[in-house]
Amino acid sequence: MAAGTETDLSADDAGETVTASVIGGTGFTGGELLRLLAGHPNVEISEVTSRSKAGKSVGSVHPPLRGADLRFTEPDDLESIDVLFAATPHGVSMGQIDEFFDVADTVVDLSADFRLESEAQYDEWYDGHDAPAYLEQAEYALPEINRENLEDAELIASGGCNATATILGLYPLFEHGVLEGGEQVVVDVKVGSSEGGAGGGEASSHPERSGVVRPYAPTGHRHEAEIEQFLGTSVAFTCHAVDMVRGASATSHVFPSGPVSKGDCWKAYRGCYEDEPFVRMAAGGSGVYRYPEPKAVAGTNYAEVGFELDRSNERVVVFSAIDNMMKGSAGQAVHATNVALGFEETAGLECTGFHPVGAP
Amino acid sequence: MAAGTETDLSADDAGETVTASVIGGTGFTGGELLRLLAGHPNVEISEVTSRSKAGKSVGSVHPPLRGADLRFTEPDDLESIDVLFAATPHGVSMGQIDEFFDVADTVVDLSADFRLESEAQYDEWYDGHDAPAYLEQAEYALPEINRENLEDAELIASGGCNATATILGLYPLFEHGVLEGGEQVVVDVKVGSSEGGAGGGEASSHPERSGVVRPYAPTGHRHEAEIEQFLGTSVAFTCHAVDMVRGASATSHVFPSGPVSKGDCWKAYRGCYEDEPFVRMAAGGSGVYRYPEPKAVAGTNYAEVGFELDRSNERVVVFSAIDNMMKGSAGQAVHATNVALGFEETAGLECTGFHPVGAP
Amino acid sequence: MAAGTETDLSADDAGETVTASVIGGTGFTGGELLRLLAGHPNVEISEVTSRSKAGKSVGSVHPPLRGADLRFTEPDDLESIDVLFAATPHGVSMGQIDEFFDVADTVVDLSADFRLESEAQYDEWYDGHDAPAYLEQAEYALPEINRENLEDAELIASGGCNATATILGLYPLFEHGVLEGGEQVVVDVKVGSSEGGAGGGEASSHPERSGVVRPYAPTGHRHEAEIEQFLGTSVAFTCHAVDMVRGASATSHVFPSGPVSKGDCWKAYRGCYEDEPFVRMAAGGSGVYRYPEPKAVAGTNYAEVGFELDRSNERVVVFSAIDNMMKGSAGQAVHATNVALGFEETAGLECTGFHPVGAP
Amino acid sequence: MAAGTETDLSADDAGETVTASVIGGTGFTGGELLRLLAGHPNVEISEVTSRSKAGKSVGSVHPPLRGADLRFTEPDDLESIDVLFAATPHGVSMGQIDEFFDVADTVVDLSADFRLESEAQYDEWYDGHDAPAYLEQAEYALPEINRENLEDAELIASGGCNATATILGLYPLFEHGVLEGGEQVVVDVKVGSSEGGAGGGEASSHPERSGVVRPYAPTGHRHEAEIEQFLGTSVAFTCHAVDMVRGASATSHVFPSGPVSKGDCWKAYRGCYEDEPFVRMAAGGSGVYRYPEPKAVAGTNYAEVGFELDRSNERVVVFSAIDNMMKGSAGQAVHATNVALGFEETAGLECTGFHPVGAP
Repeated sequence: MAAGTETDLSADDAGETVTASVIGGTGFTGGELLRLLAGHPNVEISEVTSRSKAGKSVGSVHPPLRGADLRFTEPDDLESIDVLFAATPHGVSMGQIDEFFDVADTVVDLSADFRLESEAQYDEWYDGHDAPAYLEQAEYALPEINRENLEDAELIASGGCNATATILGLYPLFEHGVLEGGEQVVVDVKVGSSEGGAGGGEASSHPERSGVVRPYAPTGHRHEAEIEQFLGTSVAFTCHAVDMVRGASATSHVFPSGPVSKGDCWKAYRGCYEDEPFVRMAAGGSGVYRYPEPKAVAGTNYAEVGFELDRSNERVVVFSAIDNMMKGSAGQAVHATNVALGFEETAGLECTGFHPVGAP
Repeated sequence: MAAGTETDLSADDAGETVTASVIGGTGFTGGELLRLLAGHPNVEISEVTSRSKAGKSVGSVHPPLRGADLRFTEPDDLESIDVLFAATPHGVSMGQIDEFFDVADTVVDLSADFRLESEAQYDEWYDGHDAPAYLEQAEYALPEINRENLEDAELIASGGCNATATILGLYPLFEHGVLEGGEQVVVDVKVGSSEGGAGGGEASSHPERSGVVRPYAPTGHRHEAEIEQFLGTSVAFTCHAVDMVRGASATSHVFPSGPVSKGDCWKAYRGCYEDEPFVRMAAGGSGVYRYPEPKAVAGTNYAEVGFELDRSNERVVVFSAIDNMMKGSAGQAVHATNVALGFEETAGLECTGFHPVGAP
Repeated sequence: MAAGTETDLSADDAGETVTASVIGGTGFTGGELLRLLAGHPNVEISEVTSRSKAGKSVGSVHPPLRGADLRFTEPDDLESIDVLFAATPHGVSMGQIDEFFDVADTVVDLSADFRLESEAQYDEWYDGHDAPAYLEQAEYALPEINRENLEDAELIASGGCNATATILGLYPLFEHGVLEGGEQVVVDVKVGSSEGGAGGGEASSHPERSGVVRPYAPTGHRHEAEIEQFLGTSVAFTCHAVDMVRGASATSHVFPSGPVSKGDCWKAYRGCYEDEPFVRMAAGGSGVYRYPEPKAVAGTNYAEVGFELDRSNERVVVFSAIDNMMKGSAGQAVHATNVALGFEETAGLECTGFHPVGAP
Repeated sequence: MAAGTETDLSADDAGETVTASVIGGTGFTGGELLRLLAGHPNVEISEVTSRSKAGKSVGSVHPPLRGADLRFTEPDDLESIDVLFAATPHGVSMGQIDEFFDVADTVVDLSADFRLESEAQYDEWYDGHDAPAYLEQAEYALPEINRENLEDAELIASGGCNATATILGLYPLFEHGVLEGGEQVVVDVKVGSSEGGAGGGEASSHPERSGVVRPYAPTGHRHEAEIEQFLGTSVAFTCHAVDMVRGASATSHVFPSGPVSKGDCWKAYRGCYEDEPFVRMAAGGSGVYRYPEPKAVAGTNYAEVGFELDRSNERVVVFSAIDNMMKGSAGQAVHATNVALGFEETAGLECTGFHPVGAP
């Protein structure tokens, strides 16, 4: 049997269970989170709030939960639980963070409200911050680079999809000295339509959105702040919408100051990821899937990372691919929660993906 | 937690494990089967054969198995195992069935070789049969309608994707007397490109295949034989290729001889399916997903079934949707094996699907 | 050179030019109509109305018209023109038809407001009719079956997309006695997302709409009325949304009362269509495109029609495919206008389509 | 009427007609070329060669040509014609160029055989060259930057799709001094499946190819040679396959040595393109289509070009989009032929595209 399943069993044996509620359960991210929590061996779902859908069955909004006995509840008067997950739009959590901690010991926020370290960054990239006192306490959730700080963390800020894909691709090169900071780094990201959320709108209607290669946020994308905060260097970031629903693919073009060998790169990536349960290397080789592709990780919490050297341009091209709903959002939040609460890291995240699969 | 997960745990507790090998592991169906078996709590994979890929890692062909430690082996000299799965093209199993039983107590065939009851049917619909003596012994695997016969079955013929979708939609109407046989039944099926297998060819190349609504096998589709064998009535069957990779959707237009009420239909479907772990009813209601859709069951072993009455035409329109790789093939084979060997029926089949998901 | 182009030249020589305005130019249908009129050798566009976009350039809404010097104008105080095209939602034209005729000699309505013959039909299928006096005068525009009546017609009701596809497939069988009326006819239609119009909404957002095989209007579709009015027999009609933007494909399953040969069918189709500039037969043959497909007619005013016999079920399966925006809407309106005003029938409609093309 | 149509008419009036034959008419590029030539007012198609399909109707391979009376002929003993178009795989034309000129005054090659200036480049990027003597005589066809040299050219080398998209985006910045050469230039291209040609193969089968964001030729793409030859600077080039059939989108990230204003960029682009019939600027503005997109030019010979400034990274992001089958291949070849033979530049290329359209 696959390793994933074995760890699943041991997790089941562990047995410990916490109670969890989800705020904002009607969106794509909230639904994905609920799907994962419903199958998590150590989690019992207490409440799922939605003012608009209160009383309705969760399965009527999220088909994967048709089997589960869950109904949306009013967001007021939450019962006390162990963990509160906030899957609300940017700006909501920072305004309610005190109430969140009134009912929960651990708060996991999937929005951008607590990802940056300083109020100054929120002034620069967002519209300021309502609860700056919490920023120092918040731990950014990208377990592969911040695992130690996540243990016993009480406020977890789950990393953004595009930032996660980019950071996972570039971090080892900085960590192992292939890059020192200050080099030219261009990040060209391609994302699926689920990043836009369940809202819709003309540009995301099927006739206008299908088949696109559409530049959006060509410059000044807010995820730049997350990336630069963790890599300690500036990146030139551009995002494109392409025809898939799930997935984010980041191609990073970097120009080391000195000569770099394949061995140097392999050493950096192996050094960072060889023991990571959710990172796969894909760098060349044979077959159809030679480099990271969103298709190959659709529905999973895996990130695929790979690279290629361009000697004539003294460039390293780094590819990284994730499912933006999983490793880029709900899956990452559950992974971080597993670390924080001492559960098996892969608990609830065992899906290994599908082949073949269409536009994920 | 979701019911599915609870049964998963109890299955894990059960603990009993059988050994299994897969013949023809390089195709889409073989890969899907391996993915399921690798995560099955009661199965240990022994060998996966492929003459062309012998020695290569299974993960190099099937991305979901990159994590598993599995390599293709030569098909000759199979070790003795408890269960042998044959995921070979039509015609192969009937020629090797004796060898299969030399090494295994239970043989599960995913091809059409043992689905029909008589040599005469194979003469009519195929090119005859090499081992007709096995036809009587073989049990057709559509557990929802043939569960009793599958218990302790030694030769299991896993049902075809289009036939499975169609039969699941129509069977209750015949079983509960809404239809008596002899009525006009038109079945209009829409299928994804994975039904064509990994082979490829010009018509299934991306430029020619994407965006199609393409009639294929407009008449005389071989699955008609399976359907008529189990429903005991003739159906007018037509198949279309549409732009998805996974999925089969059957719309059956039936014309009862007398008046039929919604209650009659609900009674028939509830009577057959209310205790079935892998059949969901979707007949109207609110939200986006009101009727069965392949998207809603992609990656799962669920079949969705629904209907609508057309009073002005005295017609019942029946919709059924499955993932052709799962409920239409590998998932059904595992489900049938679970029944035959006394495992938890849902063991290895707990995936509840994803939302949102693109062309599955 | 292709026949289409030759007739184009002669049309150019003809030279006569009429003035035309379009009401409701912001929708998909209005945009398609404008694209055709902008390239029409005998038409000069006078005004394009839109209350919401008045003053804005038409190209900012419809990319194909970026090159044209056209701006939206207020719908009030239209200048007198020769032809007025109404691309407004159902119900608008019937309320303004008098004003339409105040400014134009010929009115071409693309909505359903004047397609049916009697007020009684509008009471049954719609919410009644505001201007029943015009129903008798209105001519249904499906030039292939109603050409004579369209000559010099003053009020043209352009046929609906699903009805057009269905009628073109079945009409010859009735016209040439293969069917007499009263036989069982099941019509299973697959359509693209542009049929939903530019509005959008959750169900038509890209994440929810892509990759679907989604039953909608499973029974009681209003186009049934158009079809039955012209074929003089009832049809059991069901519609599915599939993953394409443009296109409607109708598969009609018919059961003649007596034996029918391929020759009988060919005779019927050739008899009706061999001289038609916009109908192509595709019935078997070799290559990838053996039967009618929306892909093969995307962007064109062609309808493809084909059939297959199912001897074991005494069934004729009829396939017909169109581009719902062209032959199913704007193209058909322009074709009918060409007939009514005595222009070359193919004027402005010469596009022969593309190969390969994705989801059209 | 649209400008395009007016110029069409004048072209028709011109009347002069040349004879043309196409070598290699079964591929996607050959089919597109035939479609354009069949509708070209100044071209009469003489022969279309194909050894494998000789005698078969061209329409059986290319649906848009079903209306045309054209059959494939043996490639031997071509009749003398005015213009010979070679739509053959790389390496064929260089071996037969002498025979080509035996039967034609003008040769238009759509392969890469005559795009580079020196034998040394072919040694570096390809497998050398069989007819280097012709390299000096050959004129690279990107009419927007090489129009003068194309007039009366006898050997035209039609530019490659990815190179064309990239060069059109960057050329004005070099031409007008925004860039001087030597700056860091990263080009990240996204292309559709038609670039792979009609061949097919596992990686381009629908199940494996749909929904991808797949790095291919991550470094060392041969089009780098064309780009660097015309821009006189090196570019770091990477290509991705995305889910569309037609289209190439190039995003170029450039880092000028000094400060650059929007006005500087607009001046450069307007200076180069304001009178070009096939280049549209799309840089911001309102609506859904704010930047260049393949969807907006699908089926047309237009290139869309746009840009955005990234002050924080002192970067200019340049977007350019074309239909790889048209402006990137057959359309460009026809445009160049129009220039060489003194026809109306837009003759045969008037299609303005469609809205909405799916994955083009």
